Parts: sequence; C-alpha cells; structure tokens
Amino acid sequence: MDSNVTIQRPLYLGIDGGGSKCKATILDANDNLLGTGIAGPANPFQNYQQTIISIVESAQLALSDTNLANSELNQLIAGIGLAGVNVPSIFNKMSQWQHPFAQMYLTTDLHIACLGAHQGLDGAIMITGTGSCGYSYIDGQATIIGAHGFPHGDKGSGAWFGLQAVKNVLLSLDGIEEPSLMNQAMLAHLECRTGLDLVEAVAKKPATFYAQLAFLVFDAAVNKDSLALTIIEDGASYISTVGRQLCDKHSFRMSMIGGLSNKIFAYLDQDVQYKLSLALRAPEFGAVIYAKQQTPLGR
Amino acid sequence: MDSNVTIQRPLYLGIDGGGSKCKATILDANDNLLGTGIAGPANPFQNYQQTIISIVESAQLALSDTNLANSELNQLIAGIGLAGVNVPSIFNKMSQWQHPFAQMYLTTDLHIACLGAHQGLDGAIMITGTGSCGYSYIDGQATIIGAHGFPHGDKGSGAWFGLQAVKNVLLSLDGIEEPSLMNQAMLAHLECRTGLDLVEAVAKKPATFYAQLAFLVFDAAVNKDSLALTIIEDGASYISTVGRQLCDKHSFRMSMIGGLSNKIFAYLDQDVQYKLSLALRAPEFGAVIYAKQQTPLGR
Repeated sequence: MDSNVTIQRPLYLGIDGGGSKCKATILDANDNLLGTGIAGPANPFQNYQQTIISIVESAQLALSDTNLANSELNQLIAGIGLAGVNVPSIFNKMSQWQHPFAQMYLTTDLHIACLGAHQGLDGAIMITGTGSCGYSYIDGQATIIGAHGFPHGDKGSGAWFGLQAVKNVLLSLDGIEEPSLMNQAMLAHLECRTGLDLVEAVAKKPATFYAQLAFLVFDAAVNKDSLALTIIEDGASYISTVGRQLCDKHSFRMSMIGGLSNKIFAYLDQDVQYKLSLALRAPEFGAVIYAKQQTPLGR
Repeated sequence: MDSNVTIQRPLYLGIDGGGSKCKATILDANDNLLGTGIAGPANPFQNYQQTIISIVESAQLALSDTNLANSELNQLIAGIGLAGVNVPSIFNKMSQWQHPFAQMYLTTDLHIACLGAHQGLDGAIMITGTGSCGYSYIDGQATIIGAHGFPHGDKGSGAWFGLQAVKNVLLSLDGIEEPSLMNQAMLAHLECRTGLDLVEAVAKKPATFYAQLAFLVFDAAVNKDSLALTIIEDGASYISTVGRQLCDKHSFRMSMIGGLSNKIFAYLDQDVQYKLSLALRAPEFGAVIYAKQQTPLGR
C-alpha cells in the first residue's frame, strides 16, 4: 500500500476463484489498489469446503498486505467471481454461505473476467487457458458458449491440445497414424521410453496435466509437423467460430485471455484476430467492478 | 456340477478380471465345468487391494458352486488374466502376491481372451467393449494395438462413442454444430432440460458412464443422423485399421469380442468383416488353457 494515499472507505474485495487458485484484491472507494493475496483452489463445483476456505484465506492475505487486521473482513464489500457457479445448484449453495464480509455479491468467473477486460462495459471474452469458452455480457444478458469441461469439451484449450497430442502420439506409436515430431518430444518430456510407459504416465490424469502438454503441439507446429498443424487448425477454427458467434450481431469489444491466448492467436482466422482488443484489467478488478455495480454506494 | 461326472484332479481355476468384475471358473483336468463365481472389480492398475479380494471371493464362490470347501483353494491351479498387468510394474506387483492357490499363472486379460477365442491356438482378437484394443498372440509373441485408456484413447469403444456423443451434442446445443437426433435423446436419457444440465450430468464421469451412452449414437445412425454416422464411420474405420494391421502378415483366426461388437460389426470394412470368426470359448476358459499350457500336468 502506498502510504501517501488516503484510504477512502468503504473497502472493496475482489475475488477471482478457479480450479487452481483464488486471487483476492482490495481496492478502496476510489479504486486505489491496497493489497492482494493468493490462496488455493476455489471452484465450488469441485469442492465447496475448499472454496470457502480459499476465499477467506486469500482475503486475509490481502488484508495483511494492506496492513489491516483480519477483524476488518466484516468491513469489506466483496465481489466474488467463481468457476462452477454457472450451474444453478452450485450458485444457490454458494449464495447461502454465511460469509464473513459486510456484503457478498456473487457471480461467475466469466462475468468478472469480462467486466475486467472491458472495465465494466458490455463486451465479450474468449478464454483459452486450461479450459476454453466464450462469454458475452450485453444489456444485462450473459451468453456462454462452451465451458463444457474436460475431457468431453473445452475444445481449443490447453487441456484439449494436450489430450489431442497424447491421443495422436499413442496412435502414431502404434503405427496407425503417421510419425510426428511430437512422439519423441512427448516421450522425453514425460520420461517415457515406450508407448506403454506413456499409457501409464497419462492414466487418470486431470485437465491441468494435459494443459501442460499443449506446448508440444505448438512447438512441433513451428517445425511444420503436419499432425500438430492439423490439431491446431481444428482447435483454432473452433475458437474462431466461437468468436464469430459471440460478436455476430453486436459491435463491442472482445478480448482473449488465458495462458494459451498468445500461442493460439496467430492461428485464428484473420477476421477474428482483427476483432480482438486487449483486456484492460484483470478479473479480480472485474469482481470489484461487479460489487460496485450492485451497491448504490459504489456507483 | 453334474454329479454323474467323476472329477479328475487337479482342479483348474480360470480368472478373468477387469475394471467392473472378476469371473471365476473351475474346471477339472478333463475340462469339465464344475462351477463359476462372480465378484467385484479386479484391475490391479486401478486398485491392487480390491483386485486380490475380488479374485479370492470369486474363487470361493466358484468352489461353493462346485460343492467344495474354501479350504480347497490351495488345491486349485489358477490361471489368472487381468486388465492392467500389461504394465510391467503392475505385473511384478501382482506376481509377488502371496496367493492362496496351489499355483498361480498370471497373464493379461487380453491373452486369456485370445486363448479362449481360439481354444489355445495362435490368433488375434479385437475388443470393443467399454474400452477397445487389438491383440494377437503368434509364435509366443504378444502384440497389442491400442488399449490406451480413457479419455485419450480406446477409439471405437463404448466409452469413446459415448464421449463423442456428449462432445458433439454439447457443440450442437451451442449452435456450433448442426442439429442432431442425439441432442434430445441424450437430454431425455440423462433427465436434462438444457445443455447446462448436461454439463453438470457428465462432469467427472468415468469411462463406464460414457460407455452406457454409446447406444445413442447407434440409435441415431439407424435414423440416418449425419453426425452419428460420421462418429460411427470414424470409430469403425479405426477398428477396421486395427484388424487389418493385426492380420496383415499372418493367416490365423481373428475374433471380435466385447459388448459393442454386435453394434459395430455392420460398420466395419468388408474385408475385416470377412476376416472375423466367432470366439470359441470365454476368457475365463482361456485362463484355464493358459494354466494348463504352463504346467506339465495339464499338457
């Protein structure tokens, strides 16, 4: 915290919770950044108990970063964006949480990411990280495309690329598909000698494991590996279709966020590339924007 | 047991263990069927402790069916075929089991299925059940194609068909893919109203869940649904390729077994259809054949 800034109350807590971590940010009423904190997973679809622990822990870390006591939790107006709460039963369960904050305004991780990207204005986002999806928020109406999950959905995501890589490498090692540069690269990366080792190495692995293999596809594509290029064409074409569908009938900003965005951007159709703008703020800022939109004080 | 048959000792126990159940069969030295038993899962790659429990339990049930006491376990010469033991570390762990039998001869579920299908002679099998793979045993040499597992492999299997169905239905409900007869059929079958309900219904489900959705693809194909026909063409073409690769250089019997065999047969390439013969005996008989092949007594 910059000690020269006069803190304007009320204080706002922005939470961005997902399957791998929970990020908290505290802003004052004038949008000055006071402190941040990061805790463990916060996806109530996967684990409700862990989610509320992570939210409180990240908020306490942000308070501590702000040089404020834990007892100030009940002074915070919390905007909370979480993965998983697009499922109505999960949203309801989270809403009933006896939270420690002054107020809690709950919405999806997609909504706060979109609010952050466009600083509170209507717009759309495409997320290509471990998972993938498209989202727009226009005239108070949210539209989600994708967000189907792993292994049956999330085309064009890191987990999807990793899964295609493993699938194709195994077929290639069996002689069913053509040889690929990915074969040896994957065996080496996972410290496997044979396809059978690889079967053992990937058994029962989650989406995050597969997402960490996505780079193998993009590395091979740089060297013109045809199997890798086919996979990327398929995934990128899906993301392009989602982008086109999101902004089909409207004119507004659209951003692409997530760990795979930079890699996949070059493979998107040109009309979609042209359509994309930079995300202006991070999702946890979007969560504060959401809280302010919900409270007369913050408007 | 037919009480008119004179039991010729030694007694043989055939075990066919997999991810859903463990089947035991007791035969006498003249191959007379004395008794059978079925217990829980027996895939040591998934759960070692459960596997040895299931093997012993199924053997005790088979003894009881034979009107013999549990104390006779140590009289049985056991041929045991298990899923998962194609992985060397798992094979070694199972081999070190302090089993209660007179002898234990361990091999893969694929090997005993192949021995059963061709009554101990060299040959090949294709399995299309929950999972898929091709296997041949020629001149003492086993060859495996596939058996990669879910969700990254097992193309053409029940789980694979179910996964493709879910994947395509979700894209279709999002308007990314054309409408399909599978859409309403799947929503109805899983008691879902919307795509979001469906996302919730399929989250974190195992291969067996997906395998139970395979019928939706074949039902829709009967009614000329183009998405379903495309999926089946893709899966069946892989199975045909595996079949062709298995019997490329050799002339021997080949059989197709597993719960999806009857459905997929009609979609295989004609040369592969012609190549297929009926499986002569069940895998648990193949396990006894294996035990007899390993013991001088049984030859």
